Amino acid sequence: MTTTSPRPDLAALTERFLAVRARTDRLTRDLGPEDQTPQSMTEASPTKWHRAHTTWFFEEFVLGADPAYRPRDPAFRYLFNSYYEAVGERHPRAARGHVTRPGVAEVAAYRQDVEEQLVARLEDGTLDEALLDLVELGCHHEEQHQELLLMDVKHLLSGNVLQPVYVERAPDPDPAADPVPQRWTHVPGGVTHIGDDGSGFAFDNERPRHRVWLDDVEVGTRQVTNAEWVRFIDDGGYARPDLWLSDGWATLQATGWDAPGYWRRDDDHGWTTFTLSGRRPVVAAEPVCHISFFEADAFARWAGHRLPTEQEWEARAASGRELRGGLLDPDRCHPGLAAESTLGDVWEWTASAYVPYPGFETAPGAVGEYNGKFMNDQHVLRGASAITPPHHSRVTYRNFFPAGARWAFSGLRLAR
Amino acid sequence: MTTTSPRPDLAALTERFLAVRARTDRLTRDLGPEDQTPQSMTEASPTKWHRAHTTWFFEEFVLGADPAYRPRDPAFRYLFNSYYEAVGERHPRAARGHVTRPGVAEVAAYRQDVEEQLVARLEDGTLDEALLDLVELGCHHEEQHQELLLMDVKHLLSGNVLQPVYVERAPDPDPAADPVPQRWTHVPGGVTHIGDDGSGFAFDNERPRHRVWLDDVEVGTRQVTNAEWVRFIDDGGYARPDLWLSDGWATLQATGWDAPGYWRRDDDHGWTTFTLSGRRPVVAAEPVCHISFFEADAFARWAGHRLPTEQEWEARAASGRELRGGLLDPDRCHPGLAAESTLGDVWEWTASAYVPYPGFETAPGAVGEYNGKFMNDQHVLRGASAITPPHHSRVTYRNFFPAGARWAFSGLRLAR
Amino acid sequence: MTTTSPRPDLAALTERFLAVRARTDRLTRDLGPEDQTPQSMTEASPTKWHRAHTTWFFEEFVLGADPAYRPRDPAFRYLFNSYYEAVGERHPRAARGHVTRPGVAEVAAYRQDVEEQLVARLEDGTLDEALLDLVELGCHHEEQHQELLLMDVKHLLSGNVLQPVYVERAPDPDPAADPVPQRWTHVPGGVTHIGDDGSGFAFDNERPRHRVWLDDVEVGTRQVTNAEWVRFIDDGGYARPDLWLSDGWATLQATGWDAPGYWRRDDDHGWTTFTLSGRRPVVAAEPVCHISFFEADAFARWAGHRLPTEQEWEARAASGRELRGGLLDPDRCHPGLAAESTLGDVWEWTASAYVPYPGFETAPGAVGEYNGKFMNDQHVLRGASAITPPHHSRVTYRNFFPAGARWAFSGLRLAR
Amino acid sequence: MTTTSPRPDLAALTERFLAVRARTDRLTRDLGPEDQTPQSMTEASPTKWHRAHTTWFFEEFVLGADPAYRPRDPAFRYLFNSYYEAVGERHPRAARGHVTRPGVAEVAAYRQDVEEQLVARLEDGTLDEALLDLVELGCHHEEQHQELLLMDVKHLLSGNVLQPVYVERAPDPDPAADPVPQRWTHVPGGVTHIGDDGSGFAFDNERPRHRVWLDDVEVGTRQVTNAEWVRFIDDGGYARPDLWLSDGWATLQATGWDAPGYWRRDDDHGWTTFTLSGRRPVVAAEPVCHISFFEADAFARWAGHRLPTEQEWEARAASGRELRGGLLDPDRCHPGLAAESTLGDVWEWTASAYVPYPGFETAPGAVGEYNGKFMNDQHVLRGASAITPPHHSRVTYRNFFPAGARWAFSGLRLAR
Repeated sequence: MTTTSPRPDLAALTERFLAVRARTDRLTRDLGPEDQTPQSMTEASPTKWHRAHTTWFFEEFVLGADPAYRPRDPAFRYLFNSYYEAVGERHPRAARGHVTRPGVAEVAAYRQDVEEQLVARLEDGTLDEALLDLVELGCHHEEQHQELLLMDVKHLLSGNVLQPVYVERAPDPDPAADPVPQRWTHVPGGVTHIGDDGSGFAFDNERPRHRVWLDDVEVGTRQVTNAEWVRFIDDGGYARPDLWLSDGWATLQATGWDAPGYWRRDDDHGWTTFTLSGRRPVVAAEPVCHISFFEADAFARWAGHRLPTEQEWEARAASGRELRGGLLDPDRCHPGLAAESTLGDVWEWTASAYVPYPGFETAPGAVGEYNGKFMNDQHVLRGASAITPPHHSRVTYRNFFPAGARWAFSGLRLAR
Repeated sequence: MTTTSPRPDLAALTERFLAVRARTDRLTRDLGPEDQTPQSMTEASPTKWHRAHTTWFFEEFVLGADPAYRPRDPAFRYLFNSYYEAVGERHPRAARGHVTRPGVAEVAAYRQDVEEQLVARLEDGTLDEALLDLVELGCHHEEQHQELLLMDVKHLLSGNVLQPVYVERAPDPDPAADPVPQRWTHVPGGVTHIGDDGSGFAFDNERPRHRVWLDDVEVGTRQVTNAEWVRFIDDGGYARPDLWLSDGWATLQATGWDAPGYWRRDDDHGWTTFTLSGRRPVVAAEPVCHISFFEADAFARWAGHRLPTEQEWEARAASGRELRGGLLDPDRCHPGLAAESTLGDVWEWTASAYVPYPGFETAPGAVGEYNGKFMNDQHVLRGASAITPPHHSRVTYRNFFPAGARWAFSGLRLAR
Repeated sequence: MTTTSPRPDLAALTERFLAVRARTDRLTRDLGPEDQTPQSMTEASPTKWHRAHTTWFFEEFVLGADPAYRPRDPAFRYLFNSYYEAVGERHPRAARGHVTRPGVAEVAAYRQDVEEQLVARLEDGTLDEALLDLVELGCHHEEQHQELLLMDVKHLLSGNVLQPVYVERAPDPDPAADPVPQRWTHVPGGVTHIGDDGSGFAFDNERPRHRVWLDDVEVGTRQVTNAEWVRFIDDGGYARPDLWLSDGWATLQATGWDAPGYWRRDDDHGWTTFTLSGRRPVVAAEPVCHISFFEADAFARWAGHRLPTEQEWEARAASGRELRGGLLDPDRCHPGLAAESTLGDVWEWTASAYVPYPGFETAPGAVGEYNGKFMNDQHVLRGASAITPPHHSRVTYRNFFPAGARWAFSGLRLAR
Repeated sequence: MTTTSPRPDLAALTERFLAVRARTDRLTRDLGPEDQTPQSMTEASPTKWHRAHTTWFFEEFVLGADPAYRPRDPAFRYLFNSYYEAVGERHPRAARGHVTRPGVAEVAAYRQDVEEQLVARLEDGTLDEALLDLVELGCHHEEQHQELLLMDVKHLLSGNVLQPVYVERAPDPDPAADPVPQRWTHVPGGVTHIGDDGSGFAFDNERPRHRVWLDDVEVGTRQVTNAEWVRFIDDGGYARPDLWLSDGWATLQATGWDAPGYWRRDDDHGWTTFTLSGRRPVVAAEPVCHISFFEADAFARWAGHRLPTEQEWEARAASGRELRGGLLDPDRCHPGLAAESTLGDVWEWTASAYVPYPGFETAPGAVGEYNGKFMNDQHVLRGASAITPPHHSRVTYRNFFPAGARWAFSGLRLAR
């Protein structure tokens, strides 16, 4: 969790803190109190909760480290703790959408209050190195929640028959245009170093840097596209159990999956998909998005290839080739957040289970619950997506979701 | 569903319509958009939804009867239909809390629009008798939802650790004061007429008036009180399976019930209960509230008595004795709505299953789904509660809930 | 529970006891240990368990009343108690099929041991009147389980792709032959006596005899047939929500019901049904069987009629007209048990919820749990079925099942 | 799946085939038809089913390869296919315990019939290399089911209040005797070869042999004992969320785990555990058994160590040190099967998720579903257990179960 990099000067940290906080506000500006309150499934959270929880993180771990600190409202510790067992009892996750008070205005005031106090502490120089590390961690944590917040808003709005628009966007000029051709990058094998080298911020799960053996591999130069996915569908991809993992086939049968998340097909419009700009035609050349690990794995098998491991993925990305992994201008997905991601339009499922690196260690205290305790039955995604905040992507970054999750902006890249 | 009473003049109906609509607005005035959006369980609905659904009822069944009518938004038919199969597909009940748009302001505008159009139709005299009947039905329907709305708000707010206050109320001067003594009213048996006689408005389930045979019975002069319920608890009422119906005991074991809904006991405050005025001490002399049929039945068995049937209840009420069934000033529960109920502070579970009266008939068309299709595995409650709207109570009124429901304002009265 | 009839002489009671016991053995003779062990759903029980439980009933309530009695195995009290809370902890109902020991041979030995001891007690005259009542109750109890046992075996075998035969039966000569025509019996109304008059054995739920008011009614002279049910299916009976109770429609959608239980339709054979004699063509003139209350109710609505109440049913049956309610030779269903039922081929759903009669009282002690505690959310069936034991039917008999149950031999008769 | 080793002569293969088959019969000899029929949970299977399924495997994949082969009963293909989608529809897994026919005797006849035909095919030399490979695979497959069968029987019998004995065993002379001390084996790191080298039989998931990088590691010389586990319990191991993975803690709270599977504590006997020889005292020096991955992981964290990866485990085992991994005489667990396992008394959870080795390939045809499709959300166990068949263990063997499974004979060994 801690960074081993030299501390940036305090002014820069303060500026970063305020920039991150302002970005959250910008993202939620056009969501009314009604939009910010409900929770559309257990795995998602209300916008209002994301805004309060990221604030509570600074309050609990930075301001609260001072024994003289008086919390704004002791109940917030109960309401806005996500999963930190060491902090105590908390509001049940599945019922976050039932918390109507504090309302949006009170949450905004809470945000402002904690911000002002934190800036004061940054400016008066009373935060020690460990707490400054936690401020930096809190900024990255809030950036993670910025992406979650958009995923969750999309899921919430998608269930509304009105198919609401979160952000306006012009129609795509030619949804049927061909994608760029697929090519292959050769990545030579051998003993390879994987993981963060300590020169900048990284999450605990990216550490320690360690050696692995890799065989030679070829990795696709671009992500799999919607055009390719439609061929998979048309070839019976969702009807052939031989392509699927056993758990994946069971999930398909239980859910009725026959296309990526948010896709719908009707006679008048062909394939459409729900986006943060409402329901729109599926664009052939865009990377396929909102697929589960099960689907990515089945597609790769159908294509006669496979998913890369996370180590293969990192070795390729670290080699500097094809650093820009995506296909498209990210503002196609979200104009208000243009050019924000440098690594791709969609996260890429890998073949790797999410397990600790050799020598992995958690931070002491409650913040040690950050990543390690989720290293079970999840799968690693690498890269970034069009809604990942700017500068919040690294070649060592390990994102993770359960094999059946589809509400992340998740796609795939092939290996062979 | 239809009334057989002479039509009140149109001016009176218009006045009633506007009064009912205004009362709904008054009840929801102090609930913010956040409070009005979520749904705390499948059986409850968002405030916003109640406001829109009651409006849709008038739009669908009255305005929509005119083929020239253009709905405000065709999607509202999908969003705000509760259960009318004949009207078509509808938004899933369990996900009403995920509908963030239309928001509270748009719902208010929808209410106003439909109101204005309906008043215009009432004033221009173009509504025939059947449609005027439906306007009257719509007023009663909206009153039912006024009570549901308060039940649902209470359930929603109760889950918040802040225990919010919906309406302020002064502390009770003496929560431990003794209740008035229980006495018994003798109700003579014989062939008795039960059900609505057609002289005023009644729901379809109160019809037709018919004969039953009743034996002599004695019915309590007041409802069972909190003081008596505490004795039941202290005597192991929740630990003795011999007192309970089999389904009730299974429910108790699955839920962990050990006191009425919303009750909590702690060392500092003894028994408290959550009310629309926040968490407060249990008042000994008030009628016990938020109990299930299972608990009412077990209590009666423990007390050596039984629940009255709905016919016994009605025979007693119709005899004019003890018409005022409750114990207390209703504004104890809800000062803003003082003196509104004339029949009691809590609905009273009866021994009767909710089945059709002999000769029961449903209205033609979608509105025929009003009551009849719910006549399965529910239990009849009679009377009214402190949150029942004024004039919305009748000695023939049949309320109904499943045996395990506790979020209604439900209590009991004994018979022997 | 107690009988008020004069005690038959002991020899007759002993003879009856042995006859009932022998009939259970005869019914299970052709079921192997494998057939007798599993439980195909929570509501069903293994054959082996039925045989042991009916034995335990005599051991617990009759032999066990003697303080000197030493149980054959104390664990049997835990294993073979069905639901008597007052007797203590018991094996979980849903896991009865996991109890492999005692095996079938040990259960047979247990049966014989208890029988011999009970006969000895009957012969030495040491059982008082209350215990003799319990012996008689135990015989009726075992007869109830004889029917349950056959229901449960049918359900178990039906799930086997081999469609096993429990009892051989010749092919029906003409499955398409027309049923006898439907006619109507007029039953005059007025104050009517309902319930058992105490002149012979009856269960507690048939008591006390009491007065009700009935209006005039006409009741069908025969049960609804398979031919009529096929017309209901062909007319969209399973696709029209307006015909169904709300809970029924929800059940239909959740289960996919589109025909009675055990029915299947394929191109080669048309409609077939699974019977205790294997899968066979549906016989047009036989009463429809294995329908739920929801389906019976929907059919009656579709037919423009209704179900009789249990009081109407009893008034008609008691009048002596049409005492033989069924259509068919019962051995069509079960040749080994020919001519056993005098009241019908299938139980008949009524419109009545299963509630206590006015003045209902339970017996003291554990045996008081016999019927009363199940009087919640169940529906009354009247008559008897082709698998009801001989002499185990009365015009006052009240059978009951939940509204969605289909594994009983249940059909319907119309009223208007 | 295929072996690359030279084919043993046919006589030896025939002998092995008959020996494996005879061992299955020996294991089930003392289980009655009642014991062999039920299924105590979805993940377990009836003994009778194991016996038939292993037979079906030979029939389907070896005998059935001959187009002239006529199956004994076509329904067996439906009843006894476990999960091979390519073979067609099959009986639902969760309802295997409801299949009462064919009975135990018919299954025995089915076994004998297939055996005789297979031996005839082996002896007449008409099986090609691929089919001989499948005979060998079928033998290993049946050995896997021998272990599953014992696991499942134990689970089934454990739920019986009589706590039945599958195999008699003398009391342990001194259950409280101290275990041997824990020491550590140093395993040097570097580029290491992992996986089967093709010199003998191996499952597909052990292939291909490939290189990995390993750091130096120390691995415990013995498995964790019951004595150590009791200290973990006494130190609050089941009450401290900081020790647990998030999914593990959720599982603990949902299930109420507070000790290994089958353990029970009472005042009279202290800790006891259910074994194939009935309920017995927990023996301090035996390896802890019937723990989930979650518990193994929490224990390791509590002990200040960690689980080895499967590669570390294999590197240590392959080095020839401590090949005999267990602590105890295996016949302590199962006297009838003494000295059968050479690698340990319990399987050992590793830190590794069950994912394919680099270059993993499945066999063509239905048999290709053997292992690969289960490589999702499972965890690797290494070694063997006291109930693993003789000669059915290899240093490259990869067993796997979900993280919450406890009915395998699973324990752990520490690394640091």
